[in-house]
Amino acid sequence: MQTIPLIQFGFGGVGRATVERVLQAREDFEWRYGIRLSYVALCDSQGAVVEPRGISFGNLNRLLAAKAEGQSIANASIGYRHEGLIDIVDVAGTTDAIVLDLTAEDETTDALLLALERGYSAVLANKKPLTGPYENFRQLLSSNRLRYESTVGAGVPVIATLRGNLIASHDTIHSIEGSLSGTLGYLTSGLQEGEAFSILVHNAKALGYTEPDPRDDLGGMDVARKALILARTMGWTLELDKIFVEPLYPERLNQGSVDDFLLAISALDADYRTSVAAARTHGNTLRYAVSLAGGAAEVGIKAVPLDSPLGRLQGSDNLVAFHSENYDDSPLVLQGRGAGVQGTAAGVLANVVTLATQNA
Amino acid sequence: MQTIPLIQFGFGGVGRATVERVLQAREDFEWRYGIRLSYVALCDSQGAVVEPRGISFGNLNRLLAAKAEGQSIANASIGYRHEGLIDIVDVAGTTDAIVLDLTAEDETTDALLLALERGYSAVLANKKPLTGPYENFRQLLSSNRLRYESTVGAGVPVIATLRGNLIASHDTIHSIEGSLSGTLGYLTSGLQEGEAFSILVHNAKALGYTEPDPRDDLGGMDVARKALILARTMGWTLELDKIFVEPLYPERLNQGSVDDFLLAISALDADYRTSVAAARTHGNTLRYAVSLAGGAAEVGIKAVPLDSPLGRLQGSDNLVAFHSENYDDSPLVLQGRGAGVQGTAAGVLANVVTLATQNA
Repeated sequence: MQTIPLIQFGFGGVGRATVERVLQAREDFEWRYGIRLSYVALCDSQGAVVEPRGISFGNLNRLLAAKAEGQSIANASIGYRHEGLIDIVDVAGTTDAIVLDLTAEDETTDALLLALERGYSAVLANKKPLTGPYENFRQLLSSNRLRYESTVGAGVPVIATLRGNLIASHDTIHSIEGSLSGTLGYLTSGLQEGEAFSILVHNAKALGYTEPDPRDDLGGMDVARKALILARTMGWTLELDKIFVEPLYPERLNQGSVDDFLLAISALDADYRTSVAAARTHGNTLRYAVSLAGGAAEVGIKAVPLDSPLGRLQGSDNLVAFHSENYDDSPLVLQGRGAGVQGTAAGVLANVVTLATQNA
Repeated sequence: MQTIPLIQFGFGGVGRATVERVLQAREDFEWRYGIRLSYVALCDSQGAVVEPRGISFGNLNRLLAAKAEGQSIANASIGYRHEGLIDIVDVAGTTDAIVLDLTAEDETTDALLLALERGYSAVLANKKPLTGPYENFRQLLSSNRLRYESTVGAGVPVIATLRGNLIASHDTIHSIEGSLSGTLGYLTSGLQEGEAFSILVHNAKALGYTEPDPRDDLGGMDVARKALILARTMGWTLELDKIFVEPLYPERLNQGSVDDFLLAISALDADYRTSVAAARTHGNTLRYAVSLAGGAAEVGIKAVPLDSPLGRLQGSDNLVAFHSENYDDSPLVLQGRGAGVQGTAAGVLANVVTLATQNA
């Protein structure tokens, strides 16, 4: 039995789901892989619990309960508190350790680089460290000890397929297209069914599909970060500001409050209706699509054939289609729920197992 | 730079495509992964070339040319010849070695077990060693050094997704369904379009989609072996004869020659036409499907909804849909060309890279 120390940055929805999943998988992983996952540090934005001998299951459950009640770790009064992530990396003291970055912050990059330099492994659900300057991406990927499946398709193995199958089989990738936002997939499916754009946005917000400010989703930047990660994984030395991003609303609506925005968008309904109808006359439908081809990355509304993989996609599922030398007649397609805390935590745990069994 | 010795059993279509792909990938893999793949042994059914220091690129190309002209390695007069696969395993002399089984024979199992026992890794495109007695499967899988992606979906990452994502994320798999034969996918798509069964079989044979005796495909046993590999990968301790297999022709047509068979099947056309029409009245279409659920595995003709992933599948693409706790509303779906020597060789090479970089 090999003990794998885990250091987790981030204890929000995905962070809690990951801790819960690690606890549930405990016995299964011991007999299946001969590994025991042991949290040695757990941080939220305000504090950390650090226990080099492993935080006990009882204390992990107490921390989960405290977080569920809205408390920070800083108030949970268990164990010893550190301030900086860099200090926390020091605690593991073995190269078997794995750092999980489940935050949505830029500031974890230095701690991740330090951990990798020490010989630890790392798993990211956080897109930010991979979508800053290219040099950071290159450094983070320079060892074979960083995994980041959940940054693009949550549990859908988009990155594993791109890296572990297409690139590793010396295939030549011609293009990638996909729908990488469950929220925007929900909206474009609704538009296709004749719903009004503004109603769909209201519903998506009410259902919790969007961020508190829906412009964070409708602006396309989250999808652009996913596109950038795919592009860089293919070997493109691209920067985020070189991706063409088309928001789902005009620039001027970035002014004002969320309520102003929600009131203003009904003015867009007629235009969307016209666009959907125009697409349909050509056998097309609208999707919020990622397109990577010929060194250029685009993110925006696209008319795609109704009988193409993207056109047939319904609801909030993600889809990625890889066109390559080996998949020339028809693409290699992956489809499934690519969002949600459970899917994201599942992708994180799968990466942890890969790294842990690779070291074993 | 790390040199990875390769020992390859099998030098038919997939074997040649794999050697060619290894040669093409050489420079890319040196800078990308820091690994150099070096053939130390290459065997066909009649002979072997063994060179512990690595078969030179010139000699590999000469062997490829000789095989392309229909010669056996036994006649190629390069290097030293061994008779037994077991002897050949001895040649690598380092635990970094990887044995590739690209044959379609039962007889490789002992050599594979010996190689794994010595600490080598192994990659299988050959289904036979994994579909004999369960005990062989268990022994072959008992290390983390055997990969077998190409046995099920060629280059489509079916096994990687099942093992590396679903099982490794502690997901609970409820069922798997799929279309895992390009040949039978071609037939059922053709039936849906109104073509006669017998004409489709003739065409498939003429296009090289079937084995020389089409009954080898139409009998369903090749698909059953894929179903068994999926079932065992999920942890089911199943034997091949416990899979319910429905052939596409009646038992009595197993008598007689290929020509007899091809003459006799036009008598089945009317029945297939009736079945397709009956399915359509319920919004269904016929597919030759694998179904794994509740511990039972079935392979046969199935009426599936036209608007389901399997029902929308056209032509010879493979498709696998995983229904699980994480993918409950809609399944995790993989689709792509799951056959052909290039796809199979691609799957093999991807597995080689995984193992080689895991050891690095």
